[in-house]
Amino acid sequence: MSAGLACSCITASLTRTRPYLASTISLLPFLSPSLLPPSPRYLFSNTRSYAMANTDEVKTKLKAGGKKKEVKKETGLGMSFKKDENFGEWYSEVVVNAEMIEYYDISGCYILRPWTMAIWEVMQEFFDAEIKKMKIKNCYFPLFVSPGVLEKEKDHIEGFAPEVAWVTKSGKSDLEVPIAIRPTSETVMYPYYSKWIRGHRDLPLRLNQWCNVVRWEFSNPTPFIRSREFLWQEGHTAFATQAEADVEVLEILELYRRIYEEFLAVPVIKGKKSEREKFAGGYYTTSVEAFIPNTGRGVQGATSHCLGQNFAKMFEITYENEKGEKAMVWQNSWAYSTRTIGVMVMTHGDDKGLVLPPKVAAVQVIVIPVPFKDADTQAIFDACTSTAKSLSEAGIHAETDLRDNYSPGWKYSHWEMKGVPLRLEIGPKDLANSQVRAVRRDNSAKKDIPMANLVDQVKELLDTIQQNLFDVAKQKRDACIQIVRTWDEFVEALAQKKLILAPWCDEEEVEEDVKRRTKGETGAAKTLCSPFDQPELEEGTLCFASGKPAKKWTYWGKSY
Amino acid sequence: MSAGLACSCITASLTRTRPYLASTISLLPFLSPSLLPPSPRYLFSNTRSYAMANTDEVKTKLKAGGKKKEVKKETGLGMSFKKDENFGEWYSEVVVNAEMIEYYDISGCYILRPWTMAIWEVMQEFFDAEIKKMKIKNCYFPLFVSPGVLEKEKDHIEGFAPEVAWVTKSGKSDLEVPIAIRPTSETVMYPYYSKWIRGHRDLPLRLNQWCNVVRWEFSNPTPFIRSREFLWQEGHTAFATQAEADVEVLEILELYRRIYEEFLAVPVIKGKKSEREKFAGGYYTTSVEAFIPNTGRGVQGATSHCLGQNFAKMFEITYENEKGEKAMVWQNSWAYSTRTIGVMVMTHGDDKGLVLPPKVAAVQVIVIPVPFKDADTQAIFDACTSTAKSLSEAGIHAETDLRDNYSPGWKYSHWEMKGVPLRLEIGPKDLANSQVRAVRRDNSAKKDIPMANLVDQVKELLDTIQQNLFDVAKQKRDACIQIVRTWDEFVEALAQKKLILAPWCDEEEVEEDVKRRTKGETGAAKTLCSPFDQPELEEGTLCFASGKPAKKWTYWGKSY
Repeated sequence: MSAGLACSCITASLTRTRPYLASTISLLPFLSPSLLPPSPRYLFSNTRSYAMANTDEVKTKLKAGGKKKEVKKETGLGMSFKKDENFGEWYSEVVVNAEMIEYYDISGCYILRPWTMAIWEVMQEFFDAEIKKMKIKNCYFPLFVSPGVLEKEKDHIEGFAPEVAWVTKSGKSDLEVPIAIRPTSETVMYPYYSKWIRGHRDLPLRLNQWCNVVRWEFSNPTPFIRSREFLWQEGHTAFATQAEADVEVLEILELYRRIYEEFLAVPVIKGKKSEREKFAGGYYTTSVEAFIPNTGRGVQGATSHCLGQNFAKMFEITYENEKGEKAMVWQNSWAYSTRTIGVMVMTHGDDKGLVLPPKVAAVQVIVIPVPFKDADTQAIFDACTSTAKSLSEAGIHAETDLRDNYSPGWKYSHWEMKGVPLRLEIGPKDLANSQVRAVRRDNSAKKDIPMANLVDQVKELLDTIQQNLFDVAKQKRDACIQIVRTWDEFVEALAQKKLILAPWCDEEEVEEDVKRRTKGETGAAKTLCSPFDQPELEEGTLCFASGKPAKKWTYWGKSY
Repeated sequence: MSAGLACSCITASLTRTRPYLASTISLLPFLSPSLLPPSPRYLFSNTRSYAMANTDEVKTKLKAGGKKKEVKKETGLGMSFKKDENFGEWYSEVVVNAEMIEYYDISGCYILRPWTMAIWEVMQEFFDAEIKKMKIKNCYFPLFVSPGVLEKEKDHIEGFAPEVAWVTKSGKSDLEVPIAIRPTSETVMYPYYSKWIRGHRDLPLRLNQWCNVVRWEFSNPTPFIRSREFLWQEGHTAFATQAEADVEVLEILELYRRIYEEFLAVPVIKGKKSEREKFAGGYYTTSVEAFIPNTGRGVQGATSHCLGQNFAKMFEITYENEKGEKAMVWQNSWAYSTRTIGVMVMTHGDDKGLVLPPKVAAVQVIVIPVPFKDADTQAIFDACTSTAKSLSEAGIHAETDLRDNYSPGWKYSHWEMKGVPLRLEIGPKDLANSQVRAVRRDNSAKKDIPMANLVDQVKELLDTIQQNLFDVAKQKRDACIQIVRTWDEFVEALAQKKLILAPWCDEEEVEEDVKRRTKGETGAAKTLCSPFDQPELEEGTLCFASGKPAKKWTYWGKSY
């Protein structure tokens, strides 16, 4: 499970060791950094924990138990928890220490810090441009829904009712009627679709909005993955025919796959949700499903629903077709949220902290001066500045860390914690040789890059890192896939935290039954999706759970 | 007040008349457009109202009174109300008919349609890039505030308390403690500023967020201008010194000026708000102020506040300075909202509908085929397509309207209603002469453009329109400015809907008194701002209201 699993073609230099690993200097967690002198590499390997400059929460954790402090001493990396040992705590620590999230004083709400927003904005820029190419337009509907409209589609409201937050007062006055906050916007929008759509020429109607939604859930809030307010886009479209709607469902799903695989370097499986797991009130739901090997849980990554004509019926969204007859529209809705970012953190993060895929990193390259006692410090600083400048001019997000109150070792840990994909170090020897020392975040591989080739080689390295992150994640994910054919195999694979692929009869009661029989402390097993990419189903194959003839291969597991 | 006031250097061709003006055919408001044949220009000047293809509201209005219908007949332009005659109704009609706004079933909430969002996105792209250059970073804080935090700064909460919406229930359960929805985020954010800011190296801290806020106001909801939920950006920054904070206040204010003047072509006055009108809990407030000649009201366009150390004191935002002493930060907050769009509509719109400045128009150029009965329709359509394509490739937002169920006249009215800055018509004669006929939205001026010069001349025309809209608006605004020195002059100027510039003693009680003495049906007069660009104040000048020595020139008026 170590990052070294990602085999690199870049030869690691043996002549240098990473100072913070070699260190034997004890931890001084509460000493102000500004009291310590800058520490040249090799002479003074500064192992002060990154966390000390960080949040109170980590301080509290450090104060809380000597044991955690010990862990810190051993690793010297500013993380109290290890990914393999205590995944939940590790995750909470990573998102806070990497300055992605700040916990908020209302449970289930989180502050998204700039390091997070930069990732969100990269994905947003991609997705927004793609849907605009598809002639989908942005709009903004109100945050508030009146109760009558919210409750119009029965299955839909049953799915969302327990989580709806209600505004009942303004100032000191009671509202005449309580008003709901949107948990999603089907019922907010569709009365107006009914109004705007009159004839076949008004179709298709394809709108999207970027907004916040609120679902007041009580189960286990987790940053990004399950929060009471989150950011997302929601697309809502109406077509004359099911064929058009079907095409769009898959086009959008492909964009979601690209967000995960091309940007976040997270492998996902495209497929169809079961009847039990589909969108409340919809016709069918497709999704991209990710998997977290450490917890053995699936994560629904994003969903693209065909709503069929259910909502059209309830909201009377009809049009006059070319023959002059009244017809009902076919609708889709689709969304991805800030949950994507949580899946990325869980997939790539390691015991040193966050690992960012270059394509979504606010800082792709951090340039750190490594001055020696008698070296020309100014020349080294100048080289760092001009290196970052050359990279920036080539469109690479490069920054320097020239702070004089932190040692190089501290800075390495800091930027590793924040997940910056590539570190460039410049010391006297590098200066003399007109080179920089490049260190990859994903696998710690080191390489000297001649200044003459700087931009090209850095670009190449970033591409390599992006690809390697995906390859490693896919290798780990694939290693978890277990094909089972019997109930006993299923139970065993579930205990082993596998991503289970099993032949299924596709009956809702059987899924219900599986859920009942596997219910445990960490939830029950359920279907994740039936992959579009179906292995061959030999004739006579039986459902692993019911023994009836199997209709398809389906992924099963516990999920977030 | 007619658009013709905007003198154009483009020679209007006299050989063609605008079909819908020349028309004598009566209105057929409820006849389905698809039942009418395509109507060649000159032969069949179709004057069917734009509004007929539009919303129920307009239909209702049309049905409601014969009088309004008459107005429509007279103008034949799809608007029931005239800007000079009934500004309020005109405004409501423009924003609906131009498909910017749809009224929503919760009062004070509006649907922002794609035509609006395109404008918002242009401004957002500009402003976001500018603040990123200033090293301001985006973040996202929760929608919800706990009551304790909300109420921490006394003056601040007094300003906002009556408008705060409260969530008290989720699903069917009462929340333990009611939770507020942010009316602005000072109190949401600053507890965390206190946590994040420790030493002088943590400063400045400069964050911004793009989000929705809720102010449950009861007075006169107006689309864009005063709504219960609106979109905005809010910047929140903390500095070590007042000097740095002061500089930022003005840098941001300049960006706001540019949004109004360079993008929305709306002239604004930069200045400082009075003590009475400044931000609740802040130190001083600067603003850009627009003015609507038709109503004689000022509009606070956007505000950039120096909060001083008031919030720092309440939220204990302190840092260790370079001497190791504890010091308090200086803070700013600043915001502009979707209100900007309303000001633009009010400023440029006319009796034909919306007028969009080219820089913010989703569609800058609409290309319309004008087929004759015996002409080569396909060749004309092809020419339209290739014209739009050439323009698009040059980065101009150009579209065609090739619908075969609407006449050219109907299309002219439609795209004029929607405010598209430039219309290109292509008929048989144009095709023969390798030219297009360009018609400006701002002043109806016409010009034939040789196809060979298409891109350059269209670009030039769009620049000219952008500049002309600003010039005309400024001329109208300036014509409203009235300098007064006595109370009688003040009262008279107020009755004449002037933008009043008066010498003032700068005393809060005097402003209070003016407000009391001018209170009427349409509100009372108050200070708008004291302009940074101060005319000379001769010694011995007295305050128009109190007779005390004047300290500054200040703009007064009623306002939105």
